[in-house]
Amino acid sequence: MKFTVNRDELLFSINHVSKALSAKVQMPAMSGILMEVEKDILYLTATNSDISIKVSILQGENLQIEEPGSVLLPGKYLLDAVRKIDSKDITFAIFEETILKIYAYKSNISMNILDKTNFPMLTFDESNIVVNLKSEQLKRIIRKTSFATSLSESKSVLMGVHLTVENTEIQSVATDGFRLARKKIVLDKNNPKTSVIIPRKSLEEINRIVEDFECTVEIHLFLTKALIKYKNILFQTRLIEGVYPNTQNLIPENYLTHIKFNKTELINAIERTTVFTNLEENTVVKIVTDPNKVIKLNSVNNEIGNVVEEITPIDVDLAISFQIACSAKYLIEALRAFDSTEVTIHFTGELKPFVLTGEKDDNLVQLIVPIRVV
Amino acid sequence: MKFTVNRDELLFSINHVSKALSAKVQMPAMSGILMEVEKDILYLTATNSDISIKVSILQGENLQIEEPGSVLLPGKYLLDAVRKIDSKDITFAIFEETILKIYAYKSNISMNILDKTNFPMLTFDESNIVVNLKSEQLKRIIRKTSFATSLSESKSVLMGVHLTVENTEIQSVATDGFRLARKKIVLDKNNPKTSVIIPRKSLEEINRIVEDFECTVEIHLFLTKALIKYKNILFQTRLIEGVYPNTQNLIPENYLTHIKFNKTELINAIERTTVFTNLEENTVVKIVTDPNKVIKLNSVNNEIGNVVEEITPIDVDLAISFQIACSAKYLIEALRAFDSTEVTIHFTGELKPFVLTGEKDDNLVQLIVPIRVV
Repeated sequence: MKFTVNRDELLFSINHVSKALSAKVQMPAMSGILMEVEKDILYLTATNSDISIKVSILQGENLQIEEPGSVLLPGKYLLDAVRKIDSKDITFAIFEETILKIYAYKSNISMNILDKTNFPMLTFDESNIVVNLKSEQLKRIIRKTSFATSLSESKSVLMGVHLTVENTEIQSVATDGFRLARKKIVLDKNNPKTSVIIPRKSLEEINRIVEDFECTVEIHLFLTKALIKYKNILFQTRLIEGVYPNTQNLIPENYLTHIKFNKTELINAIERTTVFTNLEENTVVKIVTDPNKVIKLNSVNNEIGNVVEEITPIDVDLAISFQIACSAKYLIEALRAFDSTEVTIHFTGELKPFVLTGEKDDNLVQLIVPIRVV
Repeated sequence: MKFTVNRDELLFSINHVSKALSAKVQMPAMSGILMEVEKDILYLTATNSDISIKVSILQGENLQIEEPGSVLLPGKYLLDAVRKIDSKDITFAIFEETILKIYAYKSNISMNILDKTNFPMLTFDESNIVVNLKSEQLKRIIRKTSFATSLSESKSVLMGVHLTVENTEIQSVATDGFRLARKKIVLDKNNPKTSVIIPRKSLEEINRIVEDFECTVEIHLFLTKALIKYKNILFQTRLIEGVYPNTQNLIPENYLTHIKFNKTELINAIERTTVFTNLEENTVVKIVTDPNKVIKLNSVNNEIGNVVEEITPIDVDLAISFQIACSAKYLIEALRAFDSTEVTIHFTGELKPFVLTGEKDDNLVQLIVPIRVV
């Protein structure tokens, strides 16, 4: 095996593939990047128990192949070495059976090759069921819903995002039982009805890899896995098996009142209110309204003290006195999912779930279950 | 107690005082900031077992005092609250005996007051022995030497920087037994002969606090403590007791050869050489010279592989073959202590300490003890 590759192009590819490197020491092959050189293409592949990533670089200006071959290399160290190399091009060549030589300007690196017998044989097949999305749409549904998945392993289906495709609509839902995020997007083409549960971590990694907003992304769906094709990258993830709960009826249809806020003002006020409490799931912020339309936010740490913040809403449709409490972290995360400058909170009662919408966020709903406080 | 203070001025002061807050939970009074309001001045004070800091704000544009008094407040939370407050001015007022009210625009904060009976009575006395330095000079001697102190508690004197004043010269020395850093600075005035050992941590905190380069800093020396006066800040540190070793004779006077490098090139080459090893004390980099004046750097990780870097020096006075090995971390830290673009390494033998100097760094010497390798 021998080839010369453009350093920046290689670093870019290794960075992507590294997202699938396993941090678990007990599986040394899973900590490796497989480098496969064929007649006119270089493949880099890494895999862990959840995702597999394969990136290709074509022979041409950025890659000159002299001799095909393949090696498994310690992924983290390969990444570190290429990142530090200060040279336009890098030449890789097998020196002895167990050593790869890397030449780059004044650097001369010898790297021990890993045993690839334990590296899994991976296939990146295409499916009959394919959903085409713009990369920007994929990133949007991930960013606006995945944070609301559950982190608790006790309900595995809730650890993923539920993607449902029907006709020209794709719907993304995430919930941990205490909040729910739902985003719908209209697609260009009709699609067969299908639904999958994709692990949150996989979506977050694909969100880091997809950068170009103008690109088409193909999602190939199987029963137990999904393949996402983006540019020269194949990203395969396992799916979460099980039945996702029906969330359709959780979102109230009628509201008692709504209050419209400037989103940034409200986020800042919540952050000030919780300055004596850490912004964790169980930090409670209380929202108190009165007929004079002045809203008060309140949070208490019995040991340190309490903070009351006043905020003037943009609009209140029915000015009544009530108070409702919820997780400050959930409220801030829900607010941050909006691109709108103004966000409206719809209330149905002091102990009933409330819903957030934003005029510039079509088909985005964030729901939060309140906390009962005395 | 009641006063109104400019938010930015207060935050700036609390930030400084916070450097002395104790992170140890077992001493709640030490986690507090003492706020003392007199007729026309506000003092903020914090202390831990090593350092005490007192900052003052004078009545005037930034401070309007209505009623004197004093309270001890939880330091971290006071800092967080003032940092988050979005208001030009903040009003503080004791509400009941145990509660301080903080009013700032639309924020209304109640903070529980700590019991100040356990807060130590601190004095910030001036001494007869005072060294005057420019703030820029103080920062320079800290930055160029303090990193070389020992982190091991077994030799407490080496955990501090040895400051020696004699006539118009101040000398700063730090060593951990494997390397040594020495910087001398010429002062404007004659000073009585004196020497102290200041804890490294104290110097690093004072280095963070001193920002203005044009200011005068007074160092008041006592037997067991030192007071540093800078602007409206009093910074007091304990001294390390004990006898500092005589380091005068450690630095060789004659050298076998010297090699001049571009500092940044050498640092980058060492960093590339050690890409398979972590940059810790025990990471060895080997320097190999030959009569052709090509220098090779070499570092090995038996498991992963090895890296050889070539570097062309600016100048070599006697081109001979030899090799010397040392801690890569120590070499990089010594190089970074120089402001010079070009740094010269002076060698006396493969197993003898070598010395670094830079033409733009007057009176700065960095010494490193080599490591014996096979």
